[in-house]
Amino acid sequence: MSTLVQYISVQADPPSLQDNTADLDRLKKVVLKQINSSDLTISLAHVPTVSKKFRQANFSGVAVVNQSEGRFEIVDFFSKRPKHLVAMALDLGTTHLEASLVDLLTGEKLALANQENAQIRFGDDILSRIHYAGRGSGLEELHKAAIESINALVTKLAHQADIDPEDIRAMSVSGNPTMVHLFLKIDPHHLCREPYIPVVNAPDSFHAQELSLAINPAAPVIVLPSVGSYFGGDLISGILASGLDQQSETCMLIDVGTNAEVVLGNKEWLIACAGAAGPALEGGVAKMGMRAGPGAIEHLSIDSISGEITYQTIEDAPACGICGSGIIDLVAALYLAQIIDLRGKFREGSDPQRLKQGEDGLCYTVVPAAEAAAGKAIVLSQVDLDAMMRSKAAMYSILSTLVKQVGLDFSQLKEIFVAGAFGRHIDPHQAITLGMLPDLPIETYHPVGNSSLAGAEMVLLEEDHRRRCSHIMQTITYLELNVNQEFMMRFSGSKFIPHTDRDLFPSVPVFEYP
Amino acid sequence: MSTLVQYISVQADPPSLQDNTADLDRLKKVVLKQINSSDLTISLAHVPTVSKKFRQANFSGVAVVNQSEGRFEIVDFFSKRPKHLVAMALDLGTTHLEASLVDLLTGEKLALANQENAQIRFGDDILSRIHYAGRGSGLEELHKAAIESINALVTKLAHQADIDPEDIRAMSVSGNPTMVHLFLKIDPHHLCREPYIPVVNAPDSFHAQELSLAINPAAPVIVLPSVGSYFGGDLISGILASGLDQQSETCMLIDVGTNAEVVLGNKEWLIACAGAAGPALEGGVAKMGMRAGPGAIEHLSIDSISGEITYQTIEDAPACGICGSGIIDLVAALYLAQIIDLRGKFREGSDPQRLKQGEDGLCYTVVPAAEAAAGKAIVLSQVDLDAMMRSKAAMYSILSTLVKQVGLDFSQLKEIFVAGAFGRHIDPHQAITLGMLPDLPIETYHPVGNSSLAGAEMVLLEEDHRRRCSHIMQTITYLELNVNQEFMMRFSGSKFIPHTDRDLFPSVPVFEYP
Repeated sequence: MSTLVQYISVQADPPSLQDNTADLDRLKKVVLKQINSSDLTISLAHVPTVSKKFRQANFSGVAVVNQSEGRFEIVDFFSKRPKHLVAMALDLGTTHLEASLVDLLTGEKLALANQENAQIRFGDDILSRIHYAGRGSGLEELHKAAIESINALVTKLAHQADIDPEDIRAMSVSGNPTMVHLFLKIDPHHLCREPYIPVVNAPDSFHAQELSLAINPAAPVIVLPSVGSYFGGDLISGILASGLDQQSETCMLIDVGTNAEVVLGNKEWLIACAGAAGPALEGGVAKMGMRAGPGAIEHLSIDSISGEITYQTIEDAPACGICGSGIIDLVAALYLAQIIDLRGKFREGSDPQRLKQGEDGLCYTVVPAAEAAAGKAIVLSQVDLDAMMRSKAAMYSILSTLVKQVGLDFSQLKEIFVAGAFGRHIDPHQAITLGMLPDLPIETYHPVGNSSLAGAEMVLLEEDHRRRCSHIMQTITYLELNVNQEFMMRFSGSKFIPHTDRDLFPSVPVFEYP
Repeated sequence: MSTLVQYISVQADPPSLQDNTADLDRLKKVVLKQINSSDLTISLAHVPTVSKKFRQANFSGVAVVNQSEGRFEIVDFFSKRPKHLVAMALDLGTTHLEASLVDLLTGEKLALANQENAQIRFGDDILSRIHYAGRGSGLEELHKAAIESINALVTKLAHQADIDPEDIRAMSVSGNPTMVHLFLKIDPHHLCREPYIPVVNAPDSFHAQELSLAINPAAPVIVLPSVGSYFGGDLISGILASGLDQQSETCMLIDVGTNAEVVLGNKEWLIACAGAAGPALEGGVAKMGMRAGPGAIEHLSIDSISGEITYQTIEDAPACGICGSGIIDLVAALYLAQIIDLRGKFREGSDPQRLKQGEDGLCYTVVPAAEAAAGKAIVLSQVDLDAMMRSKAAMYSILSTLVKQVGLDFSQLKEIFVAGAFGRHIDPHQAITLGMLPDLPIETYHPVGNSSLAGAEMVLLEEDHRRRCSHIMQTITYLELNVNQEFMMRFSGSKFIPHTDRDLFPSVPVFEYP
């Protein structure tokens, strides 16, 4: 009885001269007996439909009731209980949207689909979108593009599940604060300007029709709350899905999307921070980077004796680029093969076959042209390497700043949950070699998949999970790294492989060069 | 702090890197400290305006907060507290609308106006409107006509008070169930069909924009609840305004509009009934009846010796008709002058000058053509007299059925409140002579004016009054007269002047004719 929308059985006595209760008051009376609240309304917009269907069904059937924070609302009525009660969970990402349909009666997942964010045509990253929103009709255009992408997803999902889009009777949205602002048509101007203040962190729920979402117009839409400008509902979702807020011992959650977002804590306290560590790790390395998709090199190793490269592409398609996990493997392997040094610089002459002087300085050929898709060699340049080194340094600095902030050591963490594509694909061992993740036993690391979507699904199903969101939002401490001096110091120390302080990475071999 | 909308002072700290609370969460936090509820929302539609104005005011000023049944909603923000906080109370009558503007800060009445109900072009009375609503676009047309009349009133009121219509920030509506259904665009089909069931008795509040009301779009609109098909919010208003529900001793409220509606009770119990007694009493007598307006004869007497008629018209204008109170005076006077008998029949030859045989039988000339406006004589026919006799019989039968129902006598009533134009204009003494009102000391009767409007004003100002409405609605017993056998018997006995049982009217002289 705590899903975001529910069916409530109604067996009302028909009206008579002895009982002249009005139709809708009669309906409410029966529903009120079955909910734990006296706050039950019927919006004016739904009065004609609900009253007509209630009478046609001879005062017995099933009421469709929205529920949000103790408020209940009757939005529809059926003479017979429908087979499903469908809701949509949405992970509203900066570049990609992923969504699923869930049957609230059983918890069963009915469909899963994804879609590129149509906002990309106005800018690749969050900053460019915020700037675009400030120009003329920019906000309107970005908002419309988001709705367009979501509605395209609705069509895909409804088709997959063989239902009518109108049958989707609730929706939850998990996204970063900028995406949420644009989705709600709220100007994100101050999100990227000191002191980085969102217009709203916890938007109130609304009806799908208010944003022209192509699902049932009366469907309640809830948005997972944000904590700050760089800490969105997507990460609250991650906390829900990993159960970080319910752990007895201290654990950590790492989510690398466009930003690296990290939460540390247990059932008693939570502290979080976020920072720009993402681009290189998300496949954003200048020339050959790509998102995890068919033909992307996701794993790679270099034979220590022959120098031969073995790699694996997604779906075994011909190699056309390299994604985040592949780059981590590659750079770790280059370090272990002594082709780059601890500063992340190519060592000239270390591999005469693959490492050659190109237009932009030294370049390392990962896949020769003949072997690659479209006959175009996949190459790593020093510029790419430098970007990767900055990303990994940022990542480690974020993690260590946060852990030190609460007076702990990495060794005191019971588990580290790694969310998103990053968590699904990376090899923690190689990330440790690079000094990107702390040198802990491999079994400490747990991939948790698309936790933004998983959290969105959870809040559809349980009031408890919705309460957890509010509680997390209210109790979490947010550490602002943009003004953190310690972070800047740690960042400098982390720009080496694995680290200037080698004691931190006992498992990583050290090579000394003259 | 319990008006339907209120100003709440906000002094928030501006955001900083140390306090990155989002703008609207910041606003809510300050407002929440000042209200007795945790249920505070900001609708998506108001987010852009409120957030922009809050920032422009540098986070200090006045929030405009709607309040309804423990739910609070921020709808606007000002940097400075405006001088007024204006709300509109509306008595939505079948033939006329009357409305006032009230300053919720002081309770001061700022304007008062009335307007003919534009629905009249689709039918004079409730039944014809219900039938019209069932035809094609009838409901839509009737609804639009109601909104059109209300918006015309808004213009008048705003002009009178010298404010912008957008400054009207709340509205309350008191009307009979049919008027409320049409106002809300709900089909009133079943209101006049056994077992007489409304679609809704207690509609939930909504925003003005949902019905295109020409006041502030975010203004909450509340509708006073009904009890049954023939017992509307206008009478709940009457109970509020007369304080019937708070009396230690049993009192009675009589409201004669299109229907006669009667409530009996005290602070412990209330019982009500309604019946068609109105047309003749509201000036609906066939030929010469008119509503209380300029030129209507409102009081009249016949000199017992000379037979001369003395009358008084509203605004002392030339006589052009006779309104309800005038008819009561006239018929009582005719009885006392022995021109009609106890059955309400003209006594041929009793006044040769004025009582003459006409086309439709005997006719009594009240005002000769030469003296009347437009040179048209004002005449009472036997048909008119018969209608009046039915009305007065219905009235007394309703009152006595209700009093007997609870085992009381009229003499046990402490006070009788008489609402509406009927209460304002009639002379209880003459109504007693006719046997329309019980033979009680004149000081028992108290006119209470337009109590429908007064009640609507009260609910704008106090949550307590809104709670009284719900309580009245939930506790009142409604006696259905349409199926009451006792009522039918009493009706027959009441068709005489003053009554077949003369002991009931000791103060009224009795004349015996052979």
